[in-house]
Amino acid sequence: MVFWKSLFNTSDTASTSKTTVEGDPIEGTAANRANNGSRIFFSTERELDLYELEELCDAVGWSRRPLRKVKKALQFSFLVVSMWEERGAKRRIIGFARATSDHAFNATIWDVVVHPDFQSKGLGKAMMKYMIKKLRSEDISNITLFADPHVVNFYGGLGFLADPEGIKGMFWYPE
Amino acid sequence: MVFWKSLFNTSDTASTSKTTVEGDPIEGTAANRANNGSRIFFSTERELDLYELEELCDAVGWSRRPLRKVKKALQFSFLVVSMWEERGAKRRIIGFARATSDHAFNATIWDVVVHPDFQSKGLGKAMMKYMIKKLRSEDISNITLFADPHVVNFYGGLGFLADPEGIKGMFWYPE
Repeated sequence: MVFWKSLFNTSDTASTSKTTVEGDPIEGTAANRANNGSRIFFSTERELDLYELEELCDAVGWSRRPLRKVKKALQFSFLVVSMWEERGAKRRIIGFARATSDHAFNATIWDVVVHPDFQSKGLGKAMMKYMIKKLRSEDISNITLFADPHVVNFYGGLGFLADPEGIKGMFWYPE
Repeated sequence: MVFWKSLFNTSDTASTSKTTVEGDPIEGTAANRANNGSRIFFSTERELDLYELEELCDAVGWSRRPLRKVKKALQFSFLVVSMWEERGAKRRIIGFARATSDHAFNATIWDVVVHPDFQSKGLGKAMMKYMIKKLRSEDISNITLFADPHVVNFYGGLGFLADPEGIKGMFWYPE
């Protein structure tokens, strides 16, 4: 646990004034493997390098999307969270997630991604916990998402319930 | 069908400059019953009278929510649609729905309500078609919602699929 506290340094600040750097100590010993001299931190800065972000999404096999639309989506998301590895002066984006919201009741989380080199270390869980904490601190009561079948258990472990009280997630398809 | 075209007059404009009035002719003969000398129209105006809106939500038994938060939610929704009955100079809100969005890829529809006096007339369907059309015209490709069990078929009839490709709607609950 002490290890985690040093990995997710809560008091650290970024070297540039535009970047908000915050971290959360989390549970999970598996994640210790990430600590190989580097530091992992989270940011809510939404002015991301879109090419770096595209590279991250490429790494998990997502279809490319027009950067113009990605830029707009970041601008109009309620919360944008990115996860970074820092080695010396070098930073690399290794995770990303964002949420839309009415700023009052509901939030919906989209585009959760962790770079394959950093998966299965508890970092995705840490990033999601960070995101939930941020949304809760903004007084959002209803945090929702649409989960692909292979990640339903992952979100279940974070406190998300599928189809509570029979509520169904639905997607519109053009006729 | 002619009947519908007169009921949902597409060329009509509102008497106040702030209200956008638009209508869609829709299919469905059952809805003819709504035409008893009144006119039904849709609006995307978000400066609604919150007490009128609360009355509508009361009529379907929804829990009351702080008006301060409702106001904020309307302000930060991507799209707010209301449905009105007009008899002479008198207007009454009879339906409501809103959507959050990243303004680029995804929208999620919330708070869909039709006054009990106006249910089972095809008006909810007309309102949702209006909403979908508006979202599509804004280039939103992914229109989603979370449906209570008793309205899954209603949304199914509008082209919404539950759990497509095994995707599950999930809600976060505090531990």
